[in-house]
Amino acid sequence: MPDADGDARAAIMAATDRALREHGYADLSISRIADESGTSKSALYYHYEDKDELLVAFLDHTIERFSADVEIESWDDPEAGLRSLLDRLLPTDLDADGRAFQAALFELRAQAPHEAVYRERFTRTDRLLREAIAAHLEAGIERGRFRPVDPEATAQLFLSVIYGGMLERVTTADDDPVADLRRALDAYLAFLAAEGDG
Amino acid sequence: MPDADGDARAAIMAATDRALREHGYADLSISRIADESGTSKSALYYHYEDKDELLVAFLDHTIERFSADVEIESWDDPEAGLRSLLDRLLPTDLDADGRAFQAALFELRAQAPHEAVYRERFTRTDRLLREAIAAHLEAGIERGRFRPVDPEATAQLFLSVIYGGMLERVTTADDDPVADLRRALDAYLAFLAAEGDG
Repeated sequence: MPDADGDARAAIMAATDRALREHGYADLSISRIADESGTSKSALYYHYEDKDELLVAFLDHTIERFSADVEIESWDDPEAGLRSLLDRLLPTDLDADGRAFQAALFELRAQAPHEAVYRERFTRTDRLLREAIAAHLEAGIERGRFRPVDPEATAQLFLSVIYGGMLERVTTADDDPVADLRRALDAYLAFLAAEGDG
Repeated sequence: MPDADGDARAAIMAATDRALREHGYADLSISRIADESGTSKSALYYHYEDKDELLVAFLDHTIERFSADVEIESWDDPEAGLRSLLDRLLPTDLDADGRAFQAALFELRAQAPHEAVYRERFTRTDRLLREAIAAHLEAGIERGRFRPVDPEATAQLFLSVIYGGMLERVTTADDDPVADLRRALDAYLAFLAAEGDG
């Protein structure tokens, strides 16, 4: 039996994604999401009470995609695993569409200090990513491939670097800082791996 | 001769600072800044055309304070210099007032992808901080106290860690991530200093 309600919600999430990339968070409206989804405002209001409820659902949807994204594919090479995570979260090249999406997510995140429902979602995203990074580090330490660093603290360092780089990349007019950042992270990964290679 | 215009502007900047900490960026208004400054809205409009012009002036004012904050006091101990920068930008303890101010700055920063005047200011702040960090690193490398890392790339890593930590600290409900972060940065500084100690 097809899940008509689920299909409609999935279509709304995809339309919200497109509308956010195109208009940003500040200029997002139910009308614009309806335009993107090719449906009516009232159809949207049937599924979500207001823009805020829809955006929280969108954050949940985004976290779900993230979870799949950071799933550990291979435990055999923890250094390659960390690099592949970095490639996905902090790619050297990011097209205009990707930048627009990250900019919109930061606009949403900037609401988190005042909005508990947003704060809860970003807390969950951060925990998910931090745990994925820590799992790679732990696997590397266990296999003698990484120095015995504190996996929690080191995972937090990686995560902050990723967020800082994402933020600077979309909010400054300089050359993209990410190329420099990835170079510094390569040196840091080499340091982490230094003792394990022997 | 007293600079009445300069004094009035300084008072408005201080009032904007207080109003931002209290109400955040989204709920900031010229009325609220006037309330904080104990002056009238029309007095504010005499100095600034609108809220946007006032906020750009506030960003310039904040950058000036930052510049004084990151000035290098001592070249004798680059590691202590870097730690003191971290203490100022990413203190382990941050009170509610400090958190509110950083939250408001992120709200302003989230406008930067769409607002060139904001983007220009954050570009300037980032450059200032990156150059201050790189200067410490270069001094340390020159004196044989740090490994010969790439100072630009490594400064970018420090800066992204600082921004990421600041952002996570004010937008999540978890325990403050900064204690873990500072621990990881201590290990990283020990790595940087490792060869120079010999």
